[in-house]
Amino acid sequence: MRVQIDRIARDIEIINSFTSTPGRGITRFTFSEPYMQARAHVAEELRKIGARVATTLGGNLYGRLEGSMRDFPSVMTGSHIDSVLHGGRFDGVAGVVAALEVARVMAEEKLTRRHPVDVVVFAEEEGSRFGSVMIGSRCWVGKLAPEDLDRLRDKDGVGYAAAMANAGLAPDETTVLKPGMVKAMIELHIEQSLVLESKGIAIGVVEGINGIKQSVVTLTGVPNHAGATPMGLRHDALQGAARVIAAVEEIAVAELGGNTVATVGMLACEPGQANVIPGRAQFTIDIRDLDPERIDQTARRIFSVIQTTCQARGLSFDIQPRSDTPPARLSKEVVQLIEETARDNGIKTLRMPSGALHDSSILPEVTEVGMIFVPSKAGRSHCSEEETDLKDIRAGAEVLLGSVARLAF
Amino acid sequence: MRVQIDRIARDIEIINSFTSTPGRGITRFTFSEPYMQARAHVAEELRKIGARVATTLGGNLYGRLEGSMRDFPSVMTGSHIDSVLHGGRFDGVAGVVAALEVARVMAEEKLTRRHPVDVVVFAEEEGSRFGSVMIGSRCWVGKLAPEDLDRLRDKDGVGYAAAMANAGLAPDETTVLKPGMVKAMIELHIEQSLVLESKGIAIGVVEGINGIKQSVVTLTGVPNHAGATPMGLRHDALQGAARVIAAVEEIAVAELGGNTVATVGMLACEPGQANVIPGRAQFTIDIRDLDPERIDQTARRIFSVIQTTCQARGLSFDIQPRSDTPPARLSKEVVQLIEETARDNGIKTLRMPSGALHDSSILPEVTEVGMIFVPSKAGRSHCSEEETDLKDIRAGAEVLLGSVARLAF
Repeated sequence: MRVQIDRIARDIEIINSFTSTPGRGITRFTFSEPYMQARAHVAEELRKIGARVATTLGGNLYGRLEGSMRDFPSVMTGSHIDSVLHGGRFDGVAGVVAALEVARVMAEEKLTRRHPVDVVVFAEEEGSRFGSVMIGSRCWVGKLAPEDLDRLRDKDGVGYAAAMANAGLAPDETTVLKPGMVKAMIELHIEQSLVLESKGIAIGVVEGINGIKQSVVTLTGVPNHAGATPMGLRHDALQGAARVIAAVEEIAVAELGGNTVATVGMLACEPGQANVIPGRAQFTIDIRDLDPERIDQTARRIFSVIQTTCQARGLSFDIQPRSDTPPARLSKEVVQLIEETARDNGIKTLRMPSGALHDSSILPEVTEVGMIFVPSKAGRSHCSEEETDLKDIRAGAEVLLGSVARLAF
Repeated sequence: MRVQIDRIARDIEIINSFTSTPGRGITRFTFSEPYMQARAHVAEELRKIGARVATTLGGNLYGRLEGSMRDFPSVMTGSHIDSVLHGGRFDGVAGVVAALEVARVMAEEKLTRRHPVDVVVFAEEEGSRFGSVMIGSRCWVGKLAPEDLDRLRDKDGVGYAAAMANAGLAPDETTVLKPGMVKAMIELHIEQSLVLESKGIAIGVVEGINGIKQSVVTLTGVPNHAGATPMGLRHDALQGAARVIAAVEEIAVAELGGNTVATVGMLACEPGQANVIPGRAQFTIDIRDLDPERIDQTARRIFSVIQTTCQARGLSFDIQPRSDTPPARLSKEVVQLIEETARDNGIKTLRMPSGALHDSSILPEVTEVGMIFVPSKAGRSHCSEEETDLKDIRAGAEVLLGSVARLAF
């Protein structure tokens, strides 16, 4: 019972041949043409091994290998294939192709399974198209109602359900995932950081997933002539934003000791001309930690800096929540199962938190969840330089196979 | 001999009916359709009073009222009608409509003039379309060769000469302005600051125009996952930019005592997503002063902050010069003439520098230059709230008429 790395490599190759930005990293936004082509490849591979393929609420894809026992809860594995703008080849994809290979081996080797095995592709994990993350999984567990989907719009104003329909997708079933329906879920994912590589360990076993709070901040001042307006008479929105951006880093690094991460990833200023003082600056703030209290504390401190900065500079401000996902503790039992399986395969593991958010942070309320991390070269992710050794993906897929097989037995 | 404010008001109305952004300020980029419509209105008004209308090198428009003496140098007055994005109704336009009214009165009242009077509309003063300011005047005085014009491209890649041709414009003559050809030039312009309004004075007499140095700075770091990358392992280009932007203000305000102005008007970061650390941040720096040494000193200090910031943060940087215009001292004789004319009209004046750049800063090398400032309400400019009282424009136009009439006599 061994995974075949050449088949995994081929799946990675095929999926990444579908991108909206050839030569400039992978851009595969949910329900776009490249996305649907990559999705069709996964569906086709699942059908080849006799899986029943279906689309769920929210547009997730799953392929089910039935188990021998009627009505036993399924064992789920998978990840996502949507990407950020100019992203990498492995984020999400690694977990989908590993799950696919696990299902192939289980089907081919006719491993005894009483439980069904579900290979899952979650929709809109990154939030790149509709501005809100993990739509597919949130929809599937009933945290997002189908009738609310069209409130989520892409930059062209197309709603989520409309985009899904435009892509020719309709849910085959309206099942909402409830406790008892899934025995366990394991997602393999690239680490997206430097810890595993720096320690020379191939497998990370995730204990918990950082919560994330995203906000959109708008500072409004007075646009005016850059030459004729004395420095003391300005209300420059970008100058205010610069102070807040610096504070976002300082608060995350110094005040809280380095566990929290906080990022300003997007900033736009208006009118955005060299000879005009910016009257408006808009930017995002993304705060993550395993401890929800530390997230709130960091947000409070940053918001307080926004307030004092704006007061001092005669600016007005607006803070809009964009998303707020609590930290997720993963299953102790699944963590132990993954570790045992790795030990049986002679593979060293390291327990760690996940700094990035995953669909696996949505699922703990309906099932036992575990995650397997494989190393990211130089910790690079969400960019075209994202890279993971195939031997590490093989090690991860072996551990995933062993774990899923034990759970499905 | 009086200007008629209702005719001036009507010209302002008509010219500002041509904008690419109705309801969102005035956007009239050089050679765009609204620009050509406004330009046609000015040409038509000039023809009505018997002026000979022509297009110069670089696409400037002028209308000449001949003088009685053959080959006497002309007296020039005018400004521009191109605008910034979402700009105001008076920047440039005030000086064009005042010049037009001056020419009308001189033609109608058959005032004795030995010198020709030229009403001028300079092209691409703002640099909004082609990224470099005062193209028309620089071209006319031979500082920019016609064959170099197509190196200037708009955001769609259209070259300056190509855009001019696309708009149906070709120079009627290839004259380069040389000393001796123009006796004097007076431009009326809005102040774009708060000094006149705060002192309750209707007319500013400009002694000199600030020099301006614009640069484009690019900081390059490492784009990476906003959740999985510990704060200590980041090379965040936007965090570096925030430190530099803050320093631009601090250096202008504190280190040099408040005469220099320095502005970051444009900033863009890539990839520009909430969940990705910015790998690239690009922004403009605009530095102005009447003293060229202070401009260079400010630039050196800012560039030194860029260097140390990037060194400390593992970023690389690139600084590209965008434009570099030395300060211009205006003509003492014309300053006195304007003041005398104002005194004769019972209008109070104030000598002042110009913080903003104007075509009048290009012309001192070929002629005697003066500028008349009229107050800007609340100092607002380069925005839709830009406003000047018609009574102030009338006062300015009266002084302009008297000054031009004396010079042309």
